[in-house]
Amino acid sequence: MLGKIALEEAWAIPENFKAYDPTTLAPKGVIGGDLASNLLDVHGTRLAQMDENGVDLMVLSLSSPGVQGEADPEAAAALATLANDRMSDEVAKNPARFAGMVSVAMHDPAVAAAELKRCFEEKKGFVGCMVNDFQTVRDQDGKEGMLFYDSGEYDVFWAEAERVGCPVYVHPRAASGPIHEMMWKGRPWLEFSALGYAQRVAMHVLGIVTSGVLDRHPKLKIVMGHMGEHIPYDLYRIDHKLNRARFADMPMRKDRCIRDYFGSQLFITTSGHFSTPALMCAVQEVGIRAVMFSIDYPFESIPNGSVWFDEYVKMNGRDLVDVGRNNALDVFPRLAGDYHGLKRMSPTECQVGGIGIRKEDHGRAMVEYGLYNESWDKREVRR
Amino acid sequence: MLGKIALEEAWAIPENFKAYDPTTLAPKGVIGGDLASNLLDVHGTRLAQMDENGVDLMVLSLSSPGVQGEADPEAAAALATLANDRMSDEVAKNPARFAGMVSVAMHDPAVAAAELKRCFEEKKGFVGCMVNDFQTVRDQDGKEGMLFYDSGEYDVFWAEAERVGCPVYVHPRAASGPIHEMMWKGRPWLEFSALGYAQRVAMHVLGIVTSGVLDRHPKLKIVMGHMGEHIPYDLYRIDHKLNRARFADMPMRKDRCIRDYFGSQLFITTSGHFSTPALMCAVQEVGIRAVMFSIDYPFESIPNGSVWFDEYVKMNGRDLVDVGRNNALDVFPRLAGDYHGLKRMSPTECQVGGIGIRKEDHGRAMVEYGLYNESWDKREVRR
Amino acid sequence: MLGKIALEEAWAIPENFKAYDPTTLAPKGVIGGDLASNLLDVHGTRLAQMDENGVDLMVLSLSSPGVQGEADPEAAAALATLANDRMSDEVAKNPARFAGMVSVAMHDPAVAAAELKRCFEEKKGFVGCMVNDFQTVRDQDGKEGMLFYDSGEYDVFWAEAERVGCPVYVHPRAASGPIHEMMWKGRPWLEFSALGYAQRVAMHVLGIVTSGVLDRHPKLKIVMGHMGEHIPYDLYRIDHKLNRARFADMPMRKDRCIRDYFGSQLFITTSGHFSTPALMCAVQEVGIRAVMFSIDYPFESIPNGSVWFDEYVKMNGRDLVDVGRNNALDVFPRLAGDYHGLKRMSPTECQVGGIGIRKEDHGRAMVEYGLYNESWDKREVRR
Amino acid sequence: MLGKIALEEAWAIPENFKAYDPTTLAPKGVIGGDLASNLLDVHGTRLAQMDENGVDLMVLSLSSPGVQGEADPEAAAALATLANDRMSDEVAKNPARFAGMVSVAMHDPAVAAAELKRCFEEKKGFVGCMVNDFQTVRDQDGKEGMLFYDSGEYDVFWAEAERVGCPVYVHPRAASGPIHEMMWKGRPWLEFSALGYAQRVAMHVLGIVTSGVLDRHPKLKIVMGHMGEHIPYDLYRIDHKLNRARFADMPMRKDRCIRDYFGSQLFITTSGHFSTPALMCAVQEVGIRAVMFSIDYPFESIPNGSVWFDEYVKMNGRDLVDVGRNNALDVFPRLAGDYHGLKRMSPTECQVGGIGIRKEDHGRAMVEYGLYNESWDKREVRR
Repeated sequence: MLGKIALEEAWAIPENFKAYDPTTLAPKGVIGGDLASNLLDVHGTRLAQMDENGVDLMVLSLSSPGVQGEADPEAAAALATLANDRMSDEVAKNPARFAGMVSVAMHDPAVAAAELKRCFEEKKGFVGCMVNDFQTVRDQDGKEGMLFYDSGEYDVFWAEAERVGCPVYVHPRAASGPIHEMMWKGRPWLEFSALGYAQRVAMHVLGIVTSGVLDRHPKLKIVMGHMGEHIPYDLYRIDHKLNRARFADMPMRKDRCIRDYFGSQLFITTSGHFSTPALMCAVQEVGIRAVMFSIDYPFESIPNGSVWFDEYVKMNGRDLVDVGRNNALDVFPRLAGDYHGLKRMSPTECQVGGIGIRKEDHGRAMVEYGLYNESWDKREVRR
Repeated sequence: MLGKIALEEAWAIPENFKAYDPTTLAPKGVIGGDLASNLLDVHGTRLAQMDENGVDLMVLSLSSPGVQGEADPEAAAALATLANDRMSDEVAKNPARFAGMVSVAMHDPAVAAAELKRCFEEKKGFVGCMVNDFQTVRDQDGKEGMLFYDSGEYDVFWAEAERVGCPVYVHPRAASGPIHEMMWKGRPWLEFSALGYAQRVAMHVLGIVTSGVLDRHPKLKIVMGHMGEHIPYDLYRIDHKLNRARFADMPMRKDRCIRDYFGSQLFITTSGHFSTPALMCAVQEVGIRAVMFSIDYPFESIPNGSVWFDEYVKMNGRDLVDVGRNNALDVFPRLAGDYHGLKRMSPTECQVGGIGIRKEDHGRAMVEYGLYNESWDKREVRR
Repeated sequence: MLGKIALEEAWAIPENFKAYDPTTLAPKGVIGGDLASNLLDVHGTRLAQMDENGVDLMVLSLSSPGVQGEADPEAAAALATLANDRMSDEVAKNPARFAGMVSVAMHDPAVAAAELKRCFEEKKGFVGCMVNDFQTVRDQDGKEGMLFYDSGEYDVFWAEAERVGCPVYVHPRAASGPIHEMMWKGRPWLEFSALGYAQRVAMHVLGIVTSGVLDRHPKLKIVMGHMGEHIPYDLYRIDHKLNRARFADMPMRKDRCIRDYFGSQLFITTSGHFSTPALMCAVQEVGIRAVMFSIDYPFESIPNGSVWFDEYVKMNGRDLVDVGRNNALDVFPRLAGDYHGLKRMSPTECQVGGIGIRKEDHGRAMVEYGLYNESWDKREVRR
Repeated sequence: MLGKIALEEAWAIPENFKAYDPTTLAPKGVIGGDLASNLLDVHGTRLAQMDENGVDLMVLSLSSPGVQGEADPEAAAALATLANDRMSDEVAKNPARFAGMVSVAMHDPAVAAAELKRCFEEKKGFVGCMVNDFQTVRDQDGKEGMLFYDSGEYDVFWAEAERVGCPVYVHPRAASGPIHEMMWKGRPWLEFSALGYAQRVAMHVLGIVTSGVLDRHPKLKIVMGHMGEHIPYDLYRIDHKLNRARFADMPMRKDRCIRDYFGSQLFITTSGHFSTPALMCAVQEVGIRAVMFSIDYPFESIPNGSVWFDEYVKMNGRDLVDVGRNNALDVFPRLAGDYHGLKRMSPTECQVGGIGIRKEDHGRAMVEYGLYNESWDKREVRR
């Protein structure tokens, strides 16, 4: 499908490599490409692969943990400002193909709110904000801790996000300090993207929702990646077990279920989770409007995610185009503003459906011989 | 769900009982209610059941075969005019709750087009047109035949439907004459709603599409009931086997699949087909925008269809409300006009989702004890 | 997946080309390969493609309409005998890779039963019987007619099939005579595999079931191809509309639904219908044990059907192996007998699941980079 | 459906109330019934509800955290012995309707193995073993800690379970000590069954699998409740992100995916997770043989779980009966032994499918009027 918009796509600045060295995470070739150089690149390899794979626009964000990994509040704020200024400049080189997520230091919600305001009102190129799960903090003894944003004092941040119309994307990161030690030691392969990432984001986002943040800010939108970080599959059980008689103090509106927020205030993306049965389950549970395409580059391969979505997701063409593009314009309305200038597209414009649209010479064969192997008698493999 | 719109709902006038006596079809109690009196009633039992079951509006149509069963062209045209005038009067008594489908005699497409124009431009209360499959005709020897509308000469009718913005609903009817004899004798139980109805409508609608009617009239919309008369399940095979090399003369656009018309020019309803697996398959194949709720009263029970949709279809609330109501406003835009005055509704307005919305006293229990049995320890049955 | 068994695979003998010339159906290249030579070939191209695509065994059957297209009873019986003798010889050349379906002349059920008995008791290589829908007959005036097998007089045939343990596969064919003229003229592209085939087989098989054939022969098994010829999608409506009050004379057991026969007496295959949403709907409606893989070669491409099943059907490995192989051994027990010697296989034996099983050099990449595109940065296409 | 087997059903002994007072968890009425008395009861209310809801047999287990909540090794071992002796006596009163899970103190794997051996070889009534997630331990300073079973030293326990043919069910419990404080303070409603339970069991079971326990004990079976504790939905991402290049030290077989263990060594139940979309996703991802019915009484209502399974899960009858009963006989073979004497059942025996089986007087109506509301014109509600 042409015209895809990808929303959770990482980018880095060398100044952040002090705190976060991607080569320690994955030496060249282990994840796929060369992680460090892929993160730094925007207009080269990345754009070429976007062209080859029908990705119209990528929304970039500072690679996780980004500002959330910086325990010092002032250093964190400075990193956020630096990264946002760089992002704005980077996007300015090609706003038709790139947009950015604001980075914020979450030590002090007022500081985060001010940076959000600055980026949305004084800078160009921002369409949302990304927080990488909890903020690392350090106490007077130098011991690390984890700061979450579901306590009432963060309302100043959520209120500003609502006021300027900035969806907040909650992205995972590795645990820090004692949790890491207690839970994941002896099974480190489970701590990261295979399991731990999703578990903490699920807890954090459900904490935000159940503490009433969405009720107090009814126009605020929150987005999760990775097919919803387990939540769509478990919606029945979550809503059923948030027993209001047992948990009378839970601040969320008492006439609402978690399920009810999806499609208006909660949204998910497909980043790094290219499973059709999970996608179908998610669509059934959270609704077609609440699901958006994303890749998670460069932690995922652009062609792998795109081939999945373009060829393996056998969803109706109109719904596919909504998930692949149009929903993102509703959730992130700045993408449709003058600066980025994206328009809604039809299946025909996205070259979804039809015969012979994608490959003129093979069009006849695609339908006559079937949709999976263009040759009549030779088994084809991808290469 | 409150606010449901039902689109394929039958109604009769006594004058048509000469040609079509519902008591011969089903003696009282065999289908359910008293078919003849249910067909004649609008504002009594029917409306009371609509109220009890959250049906906001019914679009009425003359009970099948209606005008299509009248072999004499003039008698057919007269029946159409009579039925349409009666329909307009009936709807006028309560346009907030009822609308009508135009009946047309299809012997002569110009006559059908003129009646469509009259109803849409001079009468009130019409939002679409319903044809009951083929038109019965009689040749000079008195032998009955079947007239289908996929030959080019019917373009005058389709053009008028497109011009006035009138979606055409193709409804089934029993076969007549020799086909009936050759195919269904010895197995009459298969001829009607169990099988034969769907088979003929599928052939007729696919005939219309493959003959290029939708291409020549790109704003024309066609609607089928009964979960799409088998077509959604078979879309892969249909598109695959309409081999353009083998059937070079097929007039439909050569760059299109049948699949591509769903959601813009082809739509389906759930009338008389209350199966969740089939609905899920249909949504996946034709898209969430192409599916609309309907019942098929009084050939189906209003509570049975409504209980299914309201309680058994575990689709996300936003999609449910679109299928149950909002899609109908897009496909039949006159429903949203001044005369009927229907608005789009949200899940909350339709009382979908939430806790305790539907039943205030039991709201707490519904989530705490689960969604299926409000009593903790007694198995409840419907009564 | 290795070890697949394909059940509806056509084969021809030159003697039958008098009645049925495949070159008139599809000149070389229109369907795919060279239809006539593909039908005649068994141990050459066909076997090579089976090897390349993980097809362990094909059950061959005389290309439709085969014996059913022969209006003369004696000529039909002779053709059946000839074809069956040839089939037995052909299978004998490689019984580990091929088996056969008995052909029968259905003019006289006693003749059909006798031929079934002969093939199952005196010949080797047969595992089931295939009838190509109705038998063409000719009356004294030379007018063609269609003979169906749901009247009581065919019990002698069904009883013999039950007695010898021979599943009967009902395969489609084109309509003949007046039906062809009345229903499909003007839209010939719909008459064949795109629509008409399925409609007639659905009617025929439902006629057989509703007339009580399966009740009178409780060990008889009937198989349909093409994902069940529309029936699974419509099971709710079919069972709901076979209204016992209205159709009190319908002979089928009054305590049973059509749905109840699937998995014990009714089975379907995927032949020529490579759609994952339809497959998932079928599995939900008829159950995982009632669905078996098939291709429909040479009317379908072996690699196209196999690539779909092996790579696009994202079903759990154990269920996939049951559908692709093991269910066929339960339904056609002769496949597991000494002559063909097929065994049940596990996912590992079929090389389903696991890492690096299918392609040793790329195994690592398949999971690390994702399942859809082995290259990290180049979009691969099949070739 | 008659004949259902329920596998994760809690029971308590008063001696355990010292450590675990259910009245503090949920005062009477908050969860549903009277938790304390429901836990103590076996042959009274519980059995009566089983009868009313078609539950043939319940496998009982000591209410969580049971022995895992006892930090003192000797007290834990004594509690296990006491509970197991009581369980055996309780089951002996009605082995046709009840069976038991062995409780084990997991401080010392040899002690656990010995108790398993004792119960399986010297006592009657046990069909499996249940561990309630981690074992609470206390260090010399009296600080609580969590002991998991995925380190190599637990092989002595797993080996014994494999040797005696005892499936091990891993059940959730609340976190203890610092984790509880760090992660769940401020959002306690998320800590338990709504979220935290599943997260910890998922980590624990995936830890067991990735550490190679199933490879070293290829006949060992592990069961999880609650629709698989999020894992089925995430299987693509889990397998994809257990990157063998990055995690070269992960002990699990390098040619296997987590997905491959489901159906042979990993199984899930529906306990407390009565969502049809999640069930359908689970079936597609882990296969129909890997899913078994369960309720989670008395934390869940027997009628609520049973009504869901019997009336809302619109799965084919054969698969339904496998999930509801027959799969449990394969996974827990002692259920089919002489003592409990359970047999495989067919859909007819379970009264699944058919017309008029469940309610003789209404049988006709059930199919003619539809499946959801037996009255033709009154909307029925459960009561």
